[in-house]
Amino acid sequence: MSKEPVDIVGIGNAIVDVLSKTDDTFLQAERLNKGSMTLIEEAQAEALYKKMGPGMEMSGGSAANTIAAFAAMGGRAGYIGKVSNDQLGNVFRHDICASGVQFTTAPLEDGPSTARCLILITPDAQRTMCTYLGACVWIAPSDLDEQMIANAGVTYLEGYLFDRPRAKQTFRRAAEVAHAAGKKVALSLSDSFCVERHREEFLDLVEHHVDILFANESEITALYKTDDFEHAVWQVKEHCELAALTRSEKGSVIVSKTAEPVIVPAAPVAQVVDTTGAGDMYAAGFLFGHARGFPLGECGYLGSLAAAEVIAHVGARPQSDLAALVKMRKAG
Amino acid sequence: MSKEPVDIVGIGNAIVDVLSKTDDTFLQAERLNKGSMTLIEEAQAEALYKKMGPGMEMSGGSAANTIAAFAAMGGRAGYIGKVSNDQLGNVFRHDICASGVQFTTAPLEDGPSTARCLILITPDAQRTMCTYLGACVWIAPSDLDEQMIANAGVTYLEGYLFDRPRAKQTFRRAAEVAHAAGKKVALSLSDSFCVERHREEFLDLVEHHVDILFANESEITALYKTDDFEHAVWQVKEHCELAALTRSEKGSVIVSKTAEPVIVPAAPVAQVVDTTGAGDMYAAGFLFGHARGFPLGECGYLGSLAAAEVIAHVGARPQSDLAALVKMRKAG
Repeated sequence: MSKEPVDIVGIGNAIVDVLSKTDDTFLQAERLNKGSMTLIEEAQAEALYKKMGPGMEMSGGSAANTIAAFAAMGGRAGYIGKVSNDQLGNVFRHDICASGVQFTTAPLEDGPSTARCLILITPDAQRTMCTYLGACVWIAPSDLDEQMIANAGVTYLEGYLFDRPRAKQTFRRAAEVAHAAGKKVALSLSDSFCVERHREEFLDLVEHHVDILFANESEITALYKTDDFEHAVWQVKEHCELAALTRSEKGSVIVSKTAEPVIVPAAPVAQVVDTTGAGDMYAAGFLFGHARGFPLGECGYLGSLAAAEVIAHVGARPQSDLAALVKMRKAG
Repeated sequence: MSKEPVDIVGIGNAIVDVLSKTDDTFLQAERLNKGSMTLIEEAQAEALYKKMGPGMEMSGGSAANTIAAFAAMGGRAGYIGKVSNDQLGNVFRHDICASGVQFTTAPLEDGPSTARCLILITPDAQRTMCTYLGACVWIAPSDLDEQMIANAGVTYLEGYLFDRPRAKQTFRRAAEVAHAAGKKVALSLSDSFCVERHREEFLDLVEHHVDILFANESEITALYKTDDFEHAVWQVKEHCELAALTRSEKGSVIVSKTAEPVIVPAAPVAQVVDTTGAGDMYAAGFLFGHARGFPLGECGYLGSLAAAEVIAHVGARPQSDLAALVKMRKAG
């Protein structure tokens, strides 16, 4: 199935985003947790969509965003995820392939429609997400291109996969194949509520099955049931080979078992418009630097740069030439 | 069918835009006329889409953009146009209804999919459009809500409707109903190539059936087969009660049978990002002022303001609070 070997393969929920501007009153009326991701059923998605303002549709999905950006930087990347054979599924497929990503997962022919994430953007640039998972949770271990995984330097998984049993099985099988081939497994914790739903399993994963961990401050503190970020840093240092912990405008902290934590600043942004995809872009920049063997601080700063690009506009995928950004950084 | 009477009803091709950034080399390789609209068949649309970069989907359609913006300014508006009963058709319906527009045209149940316009944006902010008309040309006179038209102050039609016979019939019937009720008919000339395809019919329309004409410089000079804008101005002054002629950064000229032409400046824009929808927004602002009985110069400047909003971001529909913009202008 797979063509040339890739540096990284991402596996995640294949989702089309529907982005719309709103205000806090709307979030309160709909009882939505600002800044988080809530899973909703199709009927709820339709009801919420009806109440939302005009939107714009763009390919999304956490791991898919990371992988598309990694490819846009000039890396070789593959993606595994399930869409339906419908118009939005075609949009997803087009966009990720047009980013230069190998994507060959067969679409779901019968069953629910392609997953949609209703993203409400408030004037403070925060995004609040409601996801109808649809076709994407029909991903199964048989969808895995095991040859692609075994050949990839890193297999990148998103925590959101843990929300449904078949996707979770797929997650575990992918990690198994990667490790059996002597390759690395990376995990993004995705969302603090997702962490709370699956804390014990995530702790087990982090301690025994994950080589590179991505989390923001609220996710990592949720994982270790603490309010203290420093405490979480020292916990993760014990448990994980490498962890990149993001803290919005405070930048990130890179924690490795064998060295002192590295503090990385955020990159400057003229105006923060929409934070959708910030964490995903950070992971892309970090992993790109990591694949090229850059020092950890430089990996983190590539993450900061990619995150700064995506929060300056609406939508979770890059709109500028990331390859040029990376080259400029290397030259600078 | 219709609920409360509207100030304006728009009739046009109901289209979802697929916007993507590209460069001039790509346009040349695809032999596309920069800045214009080319009609393409489904197979061509699929082939071109495959070659395009990642996109974003947003509701479009020339008259639909105008009507959505008119409603966003606080006007009462209706729209008539044909989508298919598919995902992109639902996107179109949601967005125009969420803008506050009455839209009750029944979707096409069997037949081609919802129309799509592939919009290629070059670094100079120009947009080059390739349209697969799909379901939208299945609009028929029976789709007209004649009561809504008879009650509306203005019926706004787009020249693009002339590209297919059934849509043209629908266009003519709508104008007939509006005039029979003593109301105004407005027309946008849409595109210079469209004008060249239908010059004789458009001349007849402008002379005998249109009260308010919208055209940009290349469209109005194409209509009168001249290179001289001034010449076109004097021609249209003879033929049409009121014409608003736009000239990009040079602003617009408003020509009426009974008075001297009014010169209106363009509104300032920090950075022109994507000119998609500029003409549509101008018409919205102008018609909003006209519905409120504002002086012609003020109508034109509302057009300039709305156009300035839309060219500062990607996509053909407004993303700021146009009602606030209009109020500020009134106060200022």
